[in-house]
Amino acid sequence: MSEHKQIGSETLANVRVVLVEPSHPGNIGGAARAMKNMGLNRLALVNPARFPDPQAQWRAAGAQDVLESAEVFDTVQAAISDCQLVIGTSTRMRRIPWPSGSAEEVAADVLNRGGLQVAVLFGRETSGLTNEELQLCHTHLQIPTAPEYPSLNLAMAVQVVCYELRKQTAAHEAAIEGPQSPGWDRPPATAAQLEGFMEHLRSALEVSGFLDPDNPGQTLTRLRRLFVRAQPDATELQMLRGVLTQIEGLVGGTGSQGE
Amino acid sequence: MSEHKQIGSETLANVRVVLVEPSHPGNIGGAARAMKNMGLNRLALVNPARFPDPQAQWRAAGAQDVLESAEVFDTVQAAISDCQLVIGTSTRMRRIPWPSGSAEEVAADVLNRGGLQVAVLFGRETSGLTNEELQLCHTHLQIPTAPEYPSLNLAMAVQVVCYELRKQTAAHEAAIEGPQSPGWDRPPATAAQLEGFMEHLRSALEVSGFLDPDNPGQTLTRLRRLFVRAQPDATELQMLRGVLTQIEGLVGGTGSQGE
Repeated sequence: MSEHKQIGSETLANVRVVLVEPSHPGNIGGAARAMKNMGLNRLALVNPARFPDPQAQWRAAGAQDVLESAEVFDTVQAAISDCQLVIGTSTRMRRIPWPSGSAEEVAADVLNRGGLQVAVLFGRETSGLTNEELQLCHTHLQIPTAPEYPSLNLAMAVQVVCYELRKQTAAHEAAIEGPQSPGWDRPPATAAQLEGFMEHLRSALEVSGFLDPDNPGQTLTRLRRLFVRAQPDATELQMLRGVLTQIEGLVGGTGSQGE
Repeated sequence: MSEHKQIGSETLANVRVVLVEPSHPGNIGGAARAMKNMGLNRLALVNPARFPDPQAQWRAAGAQDVLESAEVFDTVQAAISDCQLVIGTSTRMRRIPWPSGSAEEVAADVLNRGGLQVAVLFGRETSGLTNEELQLCHTHLQIPTAPEYPSLNLAMAVQVVCYELRKQTAAHEAAIEGPQSPGWDRPPATAAQLEGFMEHLRSALEVSGFLDPDNPGQTLTRLRRLFVRAQPDATELQMLRGVLTQIEGLVGGTGSQGE
């Protein structure tokens, strides 16, 4: 199990984010933070307009280490030379159809193939990747957007792609370990406990005069649906029965607290 | 198909992003752009430190309209009062477990249930949402992150959640015959209706002697969790309030049967 976890982490460690000619240093910092939040740490910059820069540092927050270890290249070719799978992010449809997929599909592919050296290219803030750069890629990745305003901020695009990679790494690890228990603090009530409560509820509502036994209407059915839906745990049912006992005590004047 | 498309777009139009006490105006702008990129446009701000602000405008880029139509509130309660499904983003584990899911799971739930007024709460940059604010939520949403550095930038968190909503809307639209919404018979209660009920419950439990106002313990929090989880509809809340009024009548000795 721990071995599989290692494989997931290693896959992310082998994914490098390549920013091609970013013009705003804030985006470099934002991308670094987005990467580290999702467990990636290899940042490559191709001809950044300003780097290093205080704005990049500020936006990177706790991801200074990602900035400090970032590699700077003169060409995209140099940045990806040792990569086995090169992915280009693109919102535009190209004249020549290219292998492509959504962020989700491409991330799944990266995880499924595991262990490869991977590069994900992100283009310029204003103009994206050139056709020539897109043709260096094995596959193109599209982020679904609203047609009215499809242009994501650069660091945001990095965030979405890294998020998909992280999410699917976690899913891979969970699938191997089996479903996690939700970690509720109390055991769910049994059917018998729930029926006991419903019976107590009916009787308390009747003795209190809220419910006419001869003409109950839909009230109990609707209350049952509500409590069944809530899937109460045993402690919650005990608490609710305490309230019912209190009601009965008020009616009888005996103040019975024995339940 | 065109009908399904409409349903998807309408669902996103009914989702409001609520930023609680954001301190950096850049994050407000970044969130506005992230929203519009993904087809959302309803932004609510609770006590923003600086708004409007040039930094927000600059980061919003082509989403000025989202900023201009943003609503500003004094309290979270006011911002969500007409919402039927309230989601709180949270990275922390709470003492009392609460219904929760990943961004993907919660987004799927929003889309599946369609047509509800939905609020997604995002907390302060430094400290997130308070426990009290988290207890206003029907469900908590977690974004998977690397354990070493789990703290996402605020606007980035908005981006990830809006991306999941968009992605799943697209998936819904792609399905020619998607699963139908369960078609509940009554409208879900609003947050204001639920708060009214919780206040009534507290007061009825106190006058009946069930709850010691000076030493309430966790009882009310656990009852809140139960009822929030059940997501009662308006009719169910009316019925429950009828029971509470009956209890109050028993205590007062007036034997009110008027409900």
